[in-house]
Amino acid sequence: MEVYLDNNATTKVDPEVFKAMEPFFCHIYGNPNSLHKFGAGTHPKMVEALNYLYEGINAADEDDIIITANATESNNTVLKGIWIDKILNGNKNHIITSEVEHPAITATCRFLESQGVSVTYLSVNEEGTLDAQQVKDYIREDTALVSIMWANNETGKLFPIKEIGEICKEAGVPFHTDATQAIGKVPVDVQATNVTYLSLSAHKFHGPKGVGALYVKKGFELTPLLHGGEQMGGHRAGTVDVASMVGMGVAMKLATSKMALAYEDNHVRKLRDKLENAILEIPDTIVIGGKENRTPNTTLISIRGVEGESMLWDLNQKTIGASTGSACASEDLEANPVMNAFGSDSELAHTGVRFSLSRFNTEEEIDYAIEIIKNAVTRLRNISSSYAYTPKNHVSQL
Amino acid sequence: MEVYLDNNATTKVDPEVFKAMEPFFCHIYGNPNSLHKFGAGTHPKMVEALNYLYEGINAADEDDIIITANATESNNTVLKGIWIDKILNGNKNHIITSEVEHPAITATCRFLESQGVSVTYLSVNEEGTLDAQQVKDYIREDTALVSIMWANNETGKLFPIKEIGEICKEAGVPFHTDATQAIGKVPVDVQATNVTYLSLSAHKFHGPKGVGALYVKKGFELTPLLHGGEQMGGHRAGTVDVASMVGMGVAMKLATSKMALAYEDNHVRKLRDKLENAILEIPDTIVIGGKENRTPNTTLISIRGVEGESMLWDLNQKTIGASTGSACASEDLEANPVMNAFGSDSELAHTGVRFSLSRFNTEEEIDYAIEIIKNAVTRLRNISSSYAYTPKNHVSQL
Ligand SMILES: Cc1ncc(COP(=O)(O)O)c(C=O)c1O
Ligand SMILES: Cc1ncc(COP(=O)(O)O)c(C=O)c1O
Repeated sequence: MEVYLDNNATTKVDPEVFKAMEPFFCHIYGNPNSLHKFGAGTHPKMVEALNYLYEGINAADEDDIIITANATESNNTVLKGIWIDKILNGNKNHIITSEVEHPAITATCRFLESQGVSVTYLSVNEEGTLDAQQVKDYIREDTALVSIMWANNETGKLFPIKEIGEICKEAGVPFHTDATQAIGKVPVDVQATNVTYLSLSAHKFHGPKGVGALYVKKGFELTPLLHGGEQMGGHRAGTVDVASMVGMGVAMKLATSKMALAYEDNHVRKLRDKLENAILEIPDTIVIGGKENRTPNTTLISIRGVEGESMLWDLNQKTIGASTGSACASEDLEANPVMNAFGSDSELAHTGVRFSLSRFNTEEEIDYAIEIIKNAVTRLRNISSSYAYTPKNHVSQL
Repeated sequence: MEVYLDNNATTKVDPEVFKAMEPFFCHIYGNPNSLHKFGAGTHPKMVEALNYLYEGINAADEDDIIITANATESNNTVLKGIWIDKILNGNKNHIITSEVEHPAITATCRFLESQGVSVTYLSVNEEGTLDAQQVKDYIREDTALVSIMWANNETGKLFPIKEIGEICKEAGVPFHTDATQAIGKVPVDVQATNVTYLSLSAHKFHGPKGVGALYVKKGFELTPLLHGGEQMGGHRAGTVDVASMVGMGVAMKLATSKMALAYEDNHVRKLRDKLENAILEIPDTIVIGGKENRTPNTTLISIRGVEGESMLWDLNQKTIGASTGSACASEDLEANPVMNAFGSDSELAHTGVRFSLSRFNTEEEIDYAIEIIKNAVTRLRNISSSYAYTPKNHVSQL
């Protein structure tokens, strides 16, 4: 049996999404900017896709949704747009973010620091999240942007977006949220949360790879990251990838309908909990950040005495796909940054395994995974040099 | 009959390309950065795709080819990377380009000018190209980059890339070329031409939209435009769009084989010439920039007394797709910038119609197009207020 439990890294394209995309490769292939029917023939489905995106995040009609290549581009567009407009060509010089953002935020912030920008990285508490009050405490006269993720990619932990939105609104500071891991998992409503900018990536919710979006509240336009033609109202140049845009729209519709979100919150959550509880029956295992306030599909578990990488290897042999954390970090064997942020001791920092489910997982798959995981833990602990030394009083859950 | 003659705007995905992409949507969907087989299963085809790209432009093994979203992103990566590395954080302040580049270059240069960068826009001669000597004349101590396109999107005119490459090498100035309109139409060899950076977009040679590449010569790495994860060796972050990358690779192979380039140079050229010669039989028509030294698939024709937009409309009624020039410019009704650059009088500037063919066009289609075009010219001239005043000595070809 093949069991894919790495849906926070990327997801399978929903066959219905693929069906919607297919005509736009070899048949309706015109450039949407062209005046002839080969180009204009793409318009109805593009408009439909855009509508699904607006509905999916409850954007107001007058707001913008810009189609990008992925959340990385969306994040870079916001941070570098703010840099150019408010810092290089303005009188601000400070950005607030968290220390557990995706590299698409943190690496960009580190680049901005190299250019003289002052960046505050808010630390997370032992539950892997932060108090909105922290944001308030660090906002300064020269704060140009607050960027805090909606849901963490490694733990699934949800951040207090509504409260941060209110604080930013009151302080008159634009608020960006990387909602890449929230779409399709929890309700996302940009109006209810006072969000100024929001990033997302289609391949995280059963859309295609290579396409994402950036929500921009009316009145908060930024210098584009991609200058060129007049696509996206001049906010993001480049020939529109119609197939991907249409695919992302349908994926958004399928992921954010009331029924889809209810399914995620009930069935997917039930399977995640079943898997998690079965692993927690093994001694010396903990859920990083604890069980509260998470996306329903994710669990990051530390199994003392078991290297995350070794665990992945064992699981892979049995055709189960999981991760040690963010896919971006998994090629190098560095400690998981989220686990580091929790201040875990360095042994623990290498023991995280993330399981992230989707609506395509079945109970049968979870039962198979539980069996394989238990066997793997036994095998790996038997050959582990460190596990024997584990103090017995290791807390079984944070 | 449907006749698509707008292949410089975008092309149909080759069915063979689509076949290569298809498994990577719903079946082999893992994130290539993941350690499990769902991710690693994508590697062989990605390596193959990369090899096709290296072969297609004759890149050396030690050089980099970075997968991007499109040529617009590739162009922005070079210009803004140079800006950050050599201008903001260096002691250069000057860029040389031409006045007939695609907006992905000119709009970016205009942005850089707003940031204090000095930009020289070389003008083209009446044949729509420039002398390499001009580049030499304008290189200064503080020149950070020369960016000149390989082939123009509106006229198909080829620029003296080899000569410019030599001049830049001698002067120690990096040389970027936007080869978006050259790939698959003429041989492109980065080593033979001393190119430092080269941009391309898959959808211009029967690959998918939403994916492009940037060639970077070894030793000329730039600050990335997209910061984030370690994809593309840290030079371009964002989850790799495997389907598109594989599609681009196969499209490159199909477009740049010796046979493919010979077909382009013989059959496609023959059809283009047949179409062009038939139109030139109509009085008061000229090929903008003349017939020499062009890509084999393109002709930009001015038909005096006929608005380009009106012509497109008539052709569209008969299911023929063409353009007034760049697709990016065709939504607004501005004069064609290339025709302006030639110093055409303002009436002429609105009369351009671009026909751009591909290997999918047939002689039957061209015969049909010729008939429709002739009828359209007659009809439109009959209702034209300006055509009656046309002086009889209007040169029939530049
Ligand atoms: C010469 C040239 N450069 C760049 C581009 C931009 O390509 P893309 O829209 O795929 O980024 C085009 C296509 O319109 C082009 O013709
Ligand atoms: C929270 C978060 N932000 C951004 C990204 C980047 O997404 P992409 O690689 O599609 O740009 C990811 C995915 O890895 C993510 O989990």
